[in-house]
Amino acid sequence: MKALWLEHGALRLVDAPTPRTDTGDALIKVLKAGICGTDAALVAGMYAFTGIPGHEFVGRVEAGAEALIGRRVVGEINVVCGSCKMCASGWSKHCSRRTALGIRGRNGAFAEYLTLPLRNLHQVPSGVSDEAAVFTEPLAAALDVLEHIDLETTERTLVVGDGKLAQLVCRVLARAGARVEVVGRHQRKLERLEGVAWKIYRQQIVPQQNYDLAVECSGNPSGLATALGALRPRGTLVLKSTLSSAARADTARLVVDELRLVGSRCGPFPRALELLASGELDVQPLIDERYALEQGVEAFERSRQPGVLKVLVEAGR
Amino acid sequence: MKALWLEHGALRLVDAPTPRTDTGDALIKVLKAGICGTDAALVAGMYAFTGIPGHEFVGRVEAGAEALIGRRVVGEINVVCGSCKMCASGWSKHCSRRTALGIRGRNGAFAEYLTLPLRNLHQVPSGVSDEAAVFTEPLAAALDVLEHIDLETTERTLVVGDGKLAQLVCRVLARAGARVEVVGRHQRKLERLEGVAWKIYRQQIVPQQNYDLAVECSGNPSGLATALGALRPRGTLVLKSTLSSAARADTARLVVDELRLVGSRCGPFPRALELLASGELDVQPLIDERYALEQGVEAFERSRQPGVLKVLVEAGR
Repeated sequence: MKALWLEHGALRLVDAPTPRTDTGDALIKVLKAGICGTDAALVAGMYAFTGIPGHEFVGRVEAGAEALIGRRVVGEINVVCGSCKMCASGWSKHCSRRTALGIRGRNGAFAEYLTLPLRNLHQVPSGVSDEAAVFTEPLAAALDVLEHIDLETTERTLVVGDGKLAQLVCRVLARAGARVEVVGRHQRKLERLEGVAWKIYRQQIVPQQNYDLAVECSGNPSGLATALGALRPRGTLVLKSTLSSAARADTARLVVDELRLVGSRCGPFPRALELLASGELDVQPLIDERYALEQGVEAFERSRQPGVLKVLVEAGR
Repeated sequence: MKALWLEHGALRLVDAPTPRTDTGDALIKVLKAGICGTDAALVAGMYAFTGIPGHEFVGRVEAGAEALIGRRVVGEINVVCGSCKMCASGWSKHCSRRTALGIRGRNGAFAEYLTLPLRNLHQVPSGVSDEAAVFTEPLAAALDVLEHIDLETTERTLVVGDGKLAQLVCRVLARAGARVEVVGRHQRKLERLEGVAWKIYRQQIVPQQNYDLAVECSGNPSGLATALGALRPRGTLVLKSTLSSAARADTARLVVDELRLVGSRCGPFPRALELLASGELDVQPLIDERYALEQGVEAFERSRQPGVLKVLVEAGR
């Protein structure tokens, strides 16, 4: 099968063996896959990964899962052991033996086929288009922000960053009833938030000690400082970005103002699919380009250009 | 009245005017006061403060509060406006216009007399000795750790640091039923935790990704790294120390393992007094020295020496 292969920081189109179907996992024909910031980080060598990247996808089940044959599915990315301490305590997304689709120890979605255990799969409601379904995974990650806050006491919120994840977090918070302000540097990205969020074009002019909640989505150490400075006493900072390096934090302010800082990674797929099916959250404004799998390397290059948000890779139909 | 006066980093014994009693505040004759890490930080110039330091005290009301005349009291240190946004939201300890006894804009307890508003005062139960009562403020601060955690899911805990606050946090957690481990560098301090906590003598050998809760009390940037590294996924780090400088945090780990980091400052005086009255928490092992107010400068010098925990300054009887 055709696939994008990442090795030593180089991404290339290869002819790879189609995954085996005798492992008990479902075989899924990939329809569309999305390029995420994590994929760019993998290519940049921030994590050690050799194989086929890609973890945002919609596909069709071809084998290995009788009840779902022919159905459109999306898939949770963490493949877990089910028996370690974290799995036993109900936090299987933190399984100590996990692999993660296209990120850690498991080939991903920039290919004609992928495999995942049946328990990772969620059927896509008929009203959700293929293009919208690709956003299930990042939308679930954005929805996870709501798990860490009390909406009753969260009125004024700041999202730091204007990239793909920031865009989804803004939409999720606005739909939940919060007043959302967003600080970013890219005119072309911020304009997609018209009607969703108030826009601030420079971190330097963000009001200080003002917000109940800040969500760091910039992936930039200065974003962390901006987010912390913006919080009122007892405010909450949700960290969504895995920054490229250890960041400095003003820990004295954390203590004196009793701030709360929580890391947030993957989120609930069922709620993301419900939200997409409801039509209340439109992801179309985030899509900039569509490429065939054969042009996947060019797709990655395009996704790195300034002002570009989501680039989709279409593996098949 | 005799008092210790801090100005430009120099502490000296002075003859200061006795505080006025026509302000509506209660006039309190100080019996005993404790030297805290924050006092040492003030003398070291970490915060801009000119005046009489001291915020841990027990005293006797002499004027300005009819119902309490002659009674022994301790006092909450934040003097608040009652009308700003934080006060209105029930978080008056974060009042934006607050002064703080012996720390910010208000003379403190290393003196023969101090003043505080009536609403800041708590009467000391008769069974609580003067020496124990001096620990009300730091014990309340230690108890605040419990406000940030779910004891049901908190079994294995690590306290980083072996100083005055760490000692109280260990005792509070142990009494709450947690298994407490403590990492510190001072034999003479750690030995006071016999029967309270398991002791680890070097940060380098703390087990990684192992604890449900870590409490940073060391005031040392390496303590923050040790505490973060020690947490299991979804673990909680409570920061008690205002470190001397911004500290580096591995924010990628915060996100991937969804750690929670909360700052904690002042705590509940009534619960601290109840706990002291119950006799279930003994603070006597923490007291190393007692000095008269006239020897207050020497008391500060003594409190800086290795292995020394609490030094009390006795202003009067």
